[in-house]
Amino acid sequence: MSQDIIDAYQRIKDYVNKTPVMTSRTLNELISAHIYVKCENYQRIGAFKARGAFNAIKQLIEDSHPAGVITHSSGNHAQAVALAARELGVKALIIMPKNAPLVKKAATRGYGATIIECGNSPTDRVVKTKEVVEKYGYPLVHPYNDYKIIHGAGTAAYELLTEVGKLDYVLAPVGGGGLLSGTSICVKSLFPDTIVIGVEPLNANDAYLSFKDGTKIYPSINPKTIADGLRTNLGDITFKTIKENVDDIITVSEKQIISAMKFLWERMKIVVEPSGAVPLAGLFRLANEESNYKIKNKKIGLIISGGNIDLTDFFNTLSSLIAE
Amino acid sequence: MSQDIIDAYQRIKDYVNKTPVMTSRTLNELISAHIYVKCENYQRIGAFKARGAFNAIKQLIEDSHPAGVITHSSGNHAQAVALAARELGVKALIIMPKNAPLVKKAATRGYGATIIECGNSPTDRVVKTKEVVEKYGYPLVHPYNDYKIIHGAGTAAYELLTEVGKLDYVLAPVGGGGLLSGTSICVKSLFPDTIVIGVEPLNANDAYLSFKDGTKIYPSINPKTIADGLRTNLGDITFKTIKENVDDIITVSEKQIISAMKFLWERMKIVVEPSGAVPLAGLFRLANEESNYKIKNKKIGLIISGGNIDLTDFFNTLSSLIAE
Repeated sequence: MSQDIIDAYQRIKDYVNKTPVMTSRTLNELISAHIYVKCENYQRIGAFKARGAFNAIKQLIEDSHPAGVITHSSGNHAQAVALAARELGVKALIIMPKNAPLVKKAATRGYGATIIECGNSPTDRVVKTKEVVEKYGYPLVHPYNDYKIIHGAGTAAYELLTEVGKLDYVLAPVGGGGLLSGTSICVKSLFPDTIVIGVEPLNANDAYLSFKDGTKIYPSINPKTIADGLRTNLGDITFKTIKENVDDIITVSEKQIISAMKFLWERMKIVVEPSGAVPLAGLFRLANEESNYKIKNKKIGLIISGGNIDLTDFFNTLSSLIAE
Repeated sequence: MSQDIIDAYQRIKDYVNKTPVMTSRTLNELISAHIYVKCENYQRIGAFKARGAFNAIKQLIEDSHPAGVITHSSGNHAQAVALAARELGVKALIIMPKNAPLVKKAATRGYGATIIECGNSPTDRVVKTKEVVEKYGYPLVHPYNDYKIIHGAGTAAYELLTEVGKLDYVLAPVGGGGLLSGTSICVKSLFPDTIVIGVEPLNANDAYLSFKDGTKIYPSINPKTIADGLRTNLGDITFKTIKENVDDIITVSEKQIISAMKFLWERMKIVVEPSGAVPLAGLFRLANEESNYKIKNKKIGLIISGGNIDLTDFFNTLSSLIAE
């Protein structure tokens, strides 16, 4: 329901950024359409995850006044929960695999969260999470399979549609499905005939397979994709929501992801992470190949999920070139 | 005079982008001030140069109806003149050194301009330009030492001040001085007590030396700076304008430029070229060192000049890492 998204928007709007909607003459000419790029890379902590975290934690506080919250994540969700917990005045316990990048652990700790390490397998994570929830009694803020997270994520699409009006298509990336679920709920309740398409890396096409199958959730087994935010599989809530509200899921190759990312960086001057470039890769597929979708002269929204990418090597190389 | 800037703005506003003014909570907290980043990397052709080119060529057309224009540049100005000439319906002849990057030649040619090659020395360039002007009789659109270019460049500051109101400080990069001249004319005519500071690479500190000397223009001899847009020296018009309107010029090291660039990319998700990061490097200097300027809690504008940087190597490396 759209009302859930509007409620989420009212709940979080003083805490999150209203991110810009960017356009590009070059892109519009290339595709012969009107493209509206919703830039969640400019969101707090650099990704849309801040929306869900603030919405979920604020709702939990209103409902049951917990002293803390628990989550598991090695990525943007960890930082989002850490930030939201700090600003809303509760503790954050974040379960992270031992092999998570040091820079992500440091960033999460920087927001005042406590990191609890677990083994590197998905099973290790589930076991440790259960253990921590039992020990502390704080509620779990799941990274995606939770309506509070989904409704928070949907506020990005809500801002987009409020700003640019009805769109013919909206494309969003899909990993665990939180962003695509929230986007689709929002879009379909406001404009039922807008076509909502999820875009997924071919090398992590579990959501594509689940969607086409329609009856069971396919697991994501050792997915080899550069789009690190999209390696997880759907949960029961996101699967149900996506089946009900999403028109199609399409896949893109690793090369197509990098090519889209290059376009966003070089031509639009936007730093996006690989996962964030996936919807544009999908749009290029719709535009370039035989496709059931007619996009010429259409109004198309892309949800760019985030911009957190480690640029240490790039800047080290630059530094090695300077004369001083 | 501010009226010149307003006239320029009216002349070009249908052709150029009104670029966004971005802010960052992280930056504001780090500096303990309110920073407004005017993002000319989102300008057409990826740099503020589009403003001057449209203003100059449109004025030339209104004044004397030339069939073409001539300029010399191996950088952003070449593309800006090529684009503006095409859209305003005149020919563009661009003199470029033989050793200019192929990608820049291709981009300039892509806008329909004719490239005329010259030798690689500054003298070669001057001689060839004189020759081409005599042969074709088209007017020269100088990259910076021209009031039409300066007034066009000043429209970036005009948009900034119109949007955010009075600022305590405005920082702009200085190479040939066109952007700093236009910025300073605009700022001082609207808010005479706003402090305007030019920021220059220490390794190309000719404008700094000229400004401190006050009587003669120092040449830029083989400057070894990563900020390729700031390697030129001042012209007589920009020198005079800067002496009259600019409060100070400060310099930054190559390391400081890269560090500022890294901040803009990683934390603000903005692709800027090294020259574009120079004002932020200057701001970090004012904030971190013993400085005559008190910036705490002040409102500070930064003019980010552009975002054109060759990312071929970066994306080639990424491509080599993918599994497919």
